[in-house]
Amino acid sequence: MTIDICLSPALYSFYDTDPQTTVVIVDVFRASTTICAAMDAGAKAIIPVKSVDEAQEYKAKGLLAGAERNVARCDFADFGNSPYEYTADRVQGKEIAFTTTNGTQALKIAENADTIVIGAFTNLKVVTDYCVHKNQNVMVLCAGWNNKVNLEDTLFGGALIESLLLEKDFTLTGDASLMALSLWQEAKVDLKSYLSTSEHFDRLIKHGLEKDIDFCLKMNGSDALPVYEKTTQKLLNYNLLL
Amino acid sequence: MTIDICLSPALYSFYDTDPQTTVVIVDVFRASTTICAAMDAGAKAIIPVKSVDEAQEYKAKGLLAGAERNVARCDFADFGNSPYEYTADRVQGKEIAFTTTNGTQALKIAENADTIVIGAFTNLKVVTDYCVHKNQNVMVLCAGWNNKVNLEDTLFGGALIESLLLEKDFTLTGDASLMALSLWQEAKVDLKSYLSTSEHFDRLIKHGLEKDIDFCLKMNGSDALPVYEKTTQKLLNYNLLL
Repeated sequence: MTIDICLSPALYSFYDTDPQTTVVIVDVFRASTTICAAMDAGAKAIIPVKSVDEAQEYKAKGLLAGAERNVARCDFADFGNSPYEYTADRVQGKEIAFTTTNGTQALKIAENADTIVIGAFTNLKVVTDYCVHKNQNVMVLCAGWNNKVNLEDTLFGGALIESLLLEKDFTLTGDASLMALSLWQEAKVDLKSYLSTSEHFDRLIKHGLEKDIDFCLKMNGSDALPVYEKTTQKLLNYNLLL
Repeated sequence: MTIDICLSPALYSFYDTDPQTTVVIVDVFRASTTICAAMDAGAKAIIPVKSVDEAQEYKAKGLLAGAERNVARCDFADFGNSPYEYTADRVQGKEIAFTTTNGTQALKIAENADTIVIGAFTNLKVVTDYCVHKNQNVMVLCAGWNNKVNLEDTLFGGALIESLLLEKDFTLTGDASLMALSLWQEAKVDLKSYLSTSEHFDRLIKHGLEKDIDFCLKMNGSDALPVYEKTTQKLLNYNLLL
């Protein structure tokens, strides 16, 4: 079994990804953390959509909609991209159409992979266990920021690699995985401090969202296992289904 | 003045690069190191071309041609991509058409930048001085491998960032520059050992080219300053012209 990491959605097409691969999509700040939070709060399904228009259409049909662009909630939407918004009283048993600047786009790019799961620091252990259970090659796909690489998603990749290597004899393929692991091993001592000069950290701070940062960097607080079901094009919490 | 790094040619279009930028193209293994070596050996100019066909056309016109694809020298060519091939007795005063798997492609992508210079570990100090002299924003463009990121070019980016920060008050922009600097600071203690599990290192070792690796990792052995002259589309050694 191999593990590799693709640092930007724009690079995904250059990887010769075996169809029998588990692709772990990560957008630490904040889409993947927020999806986990919504599932922990009892959301029945997340319907990832690429465009704001699509989210609006779902909203018109009576579904809840989460929609964010460039950190801010879209006006029509019930929720933005903060994990704190998706509380049990609002999402329990509900389906939520969801679009964000980067995270949901990455998911659509990997749509042909056999297995797609959403990873975040909050559900690292759950995702690790699932990858081991699936027993396939693993590809981490970082959402990045407007196709540029970012530090927090790369660090998640390193954390997942480290976590998987403890469980099973994975082979690292590709320099990006070496880079991610090396950076993670330096960063993990104080993750928040290490990220403090990074771009999206700074962007969130400027929007007064330090509490979101803290939420997103909390390891293993979530039981969610958001897996993409191709037939329905929905993310379901497989931890409740397995 | 800012400094940023683009980890793959496929990501370059996502950067909003100010036209008044000095772009440093790097392909440590081996194109940029080889270009420097050819200039140190007295080559009059390197004509970077994208395709093997173009190199062959120059050869037919009587020029020397260096051409490599996937580590090997192309049959028709006078030289491959090893810095050892470009000896003074063969290149002194000559113009050489040159195409490689990744390095010369990267150069063509950045062609619109105000200033393009070739960087390698061997001419790190020379490139640092030139960037300081130009007094423009700096963008390091890594050649990578078939559009994937690679470790050695990223590490050169980190080394150049560190070197520039010692000379001038540059501002790092972008997470990739933080990543490159962090990786370099860990790697520089023993660069060869740090790179020993990376992809292209392994590829070169398998082709019996450890001596090329050693050449490429030698810091500051070169006086070459290969700058791209747009009017002629040639790389000239500005260290002889300035």
